[in-house]
Amino acid sequence: MNAHNIAVIPGDGIGTEVTPEGVLALKAAAQRFDIDLTFEEFNFASCDYYLAHGQMLPDDWKATLSRFDAIFFGAVGLPDKVPDHVSLWGSLLQFRREFDQYINLRPCKLMPGIKSPLADRQPGDIDFYVVRENTEGEYSSIGGKIFEGTERETVMQETVMTRTGVDRVLKYAFELAKKRPRGKLTSATKSNGISITMPYWDERVKAMHAFYPEIDVDQFHIDILTANFVLHPDWFDVVVASNLFGDILSDLGPACTGTIGVAPSANINPEGAFPSLFEPVHGSAPDIAGQGIANPIGQIWCGAMMLDHLGHEEAGKAMLDAIEAVLAKADPNVLTPDLKGQGTTRDLAQAIIEAI
Amino acid sequence: MNAHNIAVIPGDGIGTEVTPEGVLALKAAAQRFDIDLTFEEFNFASCDYYLAHGQMLPDDWKATLSRFDAIFFGAVGLPDKVPDHVSLWGSLLQFRREFDQYINLRPCKLMPGIKSPLADRQPGDIDFYVVRENTEGEYSSIGGKIFEGTERETVMQETVMTRTGVDRVLKYAFELAKKRPRGKLTSATKSNGISITMPYWDERVKAMHAFYPEIDVDQFHIDILTANFVLHPDWFDVVVASNLFGDILSDLGPACTGTIGVAPSANINPEGAFPSLFEPVHGSAPDIAGQGIANPIGQIWCGAMMLDHLGHEEAGKAMLDAIEAVLAKADPNVLTPDLKGQGTTRDLAQAIIEAI
Ligand SMILES: CC(C)[C@H](C(=O)O)[C@@H](O)C(=O)O
Ligand SMILES: CC(C)[C@H](C(=O)O)[C@@H](O)C(=O)O
Repeated sequence: MNAHNIAVIPGDGIGTEVTPEGVLALKAAAQRFDIDLTFEEFNFASCDYYLAHGQMLPDDWKATLSRFDAIFFGAVGLPDKVPDHVSLWGSLLQFRREFDQYINLRPCKLMPGIKSPLADRQPGDIDFYVVRENTEGEYSSIGGKIFEGTERETVMQETVMTRTGVDRVLKYAFELAKKRPRGKLTSATKSNGISITMPYWDERVKAMHAFYPEIDVDQFHIDILTANFVLHPDWFDVVVASNLFGDILSDLGPACTGTIGVAPSANINPEGAFPSLFEPVHGSAPDIAGQGIANPIGQIWCGAMMLDHLGHEEAGKAMLDAIEAVLAKADPNVLTPDLKGQGTTRDLAQAIIEAI
Repeated sequence: MNAHNIAVIPGDGIGTEVTPEGVLALKAAAQRFDIDLTFEEFNFASCDYYLAHGQMLPDDWKATLSRFDAIFFGAVGLPDKVPDHVSLWGSLLQFRREFDQYINLRPCKLMPGIKSPLADRQPGDIDFYVVRENTEGEYSSIGGKIFEGTERETVMQETVMTRTGVDRVLKYAFELAKKRPRGKLTSATKSNGISITMPYWDERVKAMHAFYPEIDVDQFHIDILTANFVLHPDWFDVVVASNLFGDILSDLGPACTGTIGVAPSANINPEGAFPSLFEPVHGSAPDIAGQGIANPIGQIWCGAMMLDHLGHEEAGKAMLDAIEAVLAKADPNVLTPDLKGQGTTRDLAQAIIEAI
């Protein structure tokens, strides 16, 4: 398959500034590698849309977006206008559930020219993926409150793990580990404290490992695992985790590499029954929106992951190589202010596009 | 109250090597500050005890330990002999529940002479406490499995938060923040994803804040909070968290300061209805046990926290000052191998005792 329909959803804040650059970068890669990409832009899944329509998405959003091969997403959320639980649960979280995007994938990679908060780490030292379960686990909505307003007030919320849900994310993680040079998988657990769901998670890891004897598997409890992200980030290759633990690790990992402002994130339905969604980690950043200085790398890196996912691994790699080449050059006239340069979104994007 | 009975439980592995040094350091501080401490040692809550008796604790442990003002604990767990869930749930976790030690308190502090994994951080830059709820929340044992052994297999586990449980840990954290120079409290939440229990947590933070208007309160979702521990550890003064989030943050915090091997941890019943328990974070470290090279600082720092808790803040501070003075001297003949010295447990402890 060489032709793909891409839905572009800029969303809010700097999302509207970086998605056009991401699209230009994708067009450059498509041209070079002879891929046929078509783009269609949508203004829903934004707070402005919500303010105009009283909902984040049109009623027929699912039918509309189902026609596409992938969703290229900017960022959603303007907490001053719309509470996050409305904007996020009304869009992103809907997509994850309704499009069964059960994998959330995030690379954690030290990049040239980007300062890591960790001492004595060089590009190449840290390069791993966090694979997060994206549809169940700790993010269930089962539960409630009793004795409301009294001293006996009690709230409960269920964590729900299914064999289907756990096994499919593990399978994806094992398959990913198989493709990686080191072939190593780390499981995030907490079976010494969370005594029902997490031992079940461990049990399924063991069962799945039987199908992948060549993969080197270890596990850490989430507390010491977060510590090891800081102390020994070089230990990791592919890290697989439940919804909540994956949420934590996939912010902590990019924080350790200093890439929280430039890292991408993919919400994937591996079977392709529904479109997958690619969005930068950085969010809508209302504080710098409208100034034309947002760093477009996260969005362009999302494009690289999207091409990868669509089967164009070489093109994806070329986009990532272009990003790294421009970062390595470290031209202050090109780099955006977050990277201590004086460049604009356009300047930095243009340099990357030329490198592609 | 100037006289205190202390129960000493060395436990397993290096616990048996560092507790005697901790006791000697406590005796030195007691002498200097004229405090009357008596110690009694117990061999239960160890894996050897378990292997001999088939249980971690004697039947009358609660009555036995209730007579004491505090428990000075080494470390428990030898996974090669006894599975962790048996040794830990049969001892430490029992103490926490039965003695209603609803506060878990851990300092995160950059110390002179201890290398932080973070770049460009100096002693003084990082100095905060994590206050963890220690009895409820995500560590409930309510839940189970259905459709076992089939493709429909599903496991569930409840998170349970009570107003009593949440309010008392918040109150403790606000009171602690009040005593600190910056008077700042950070709440760990995830109300944008965990949609029932965490919004309740936020609601109680707000309600408690009304009683402490002078305290500066902020909150972060746990994902970005872990990132900020790495990126901006200087932002924090007192961080309050649920059982699971506190578990994570109280390993991550000491990891960021490089002090996971020397940090103490206190399990506190603030009302004093039951004894509180003081244990180093490092655990039993079976790999280095028996060689006399374990670092005794964690255990001695526990002694400092214990004196603090018993109302002898000056004496506690003197113990901590002694630790910092010896670390600052950085004598390789005194420092243990984990600190790149050639000293023994005894050498390092003796230097600290002399400084007291
Ligand atoms: C051993 C385990 C159950 C325990 C916990 O999670 O509470 C430990 O990690 C701790 O922090 O004391
Ligand atoms: C906004 C929030 C619900 C979401 C999550 O926790 O999944 C976010 O943190 C993310 O990682 O995409």
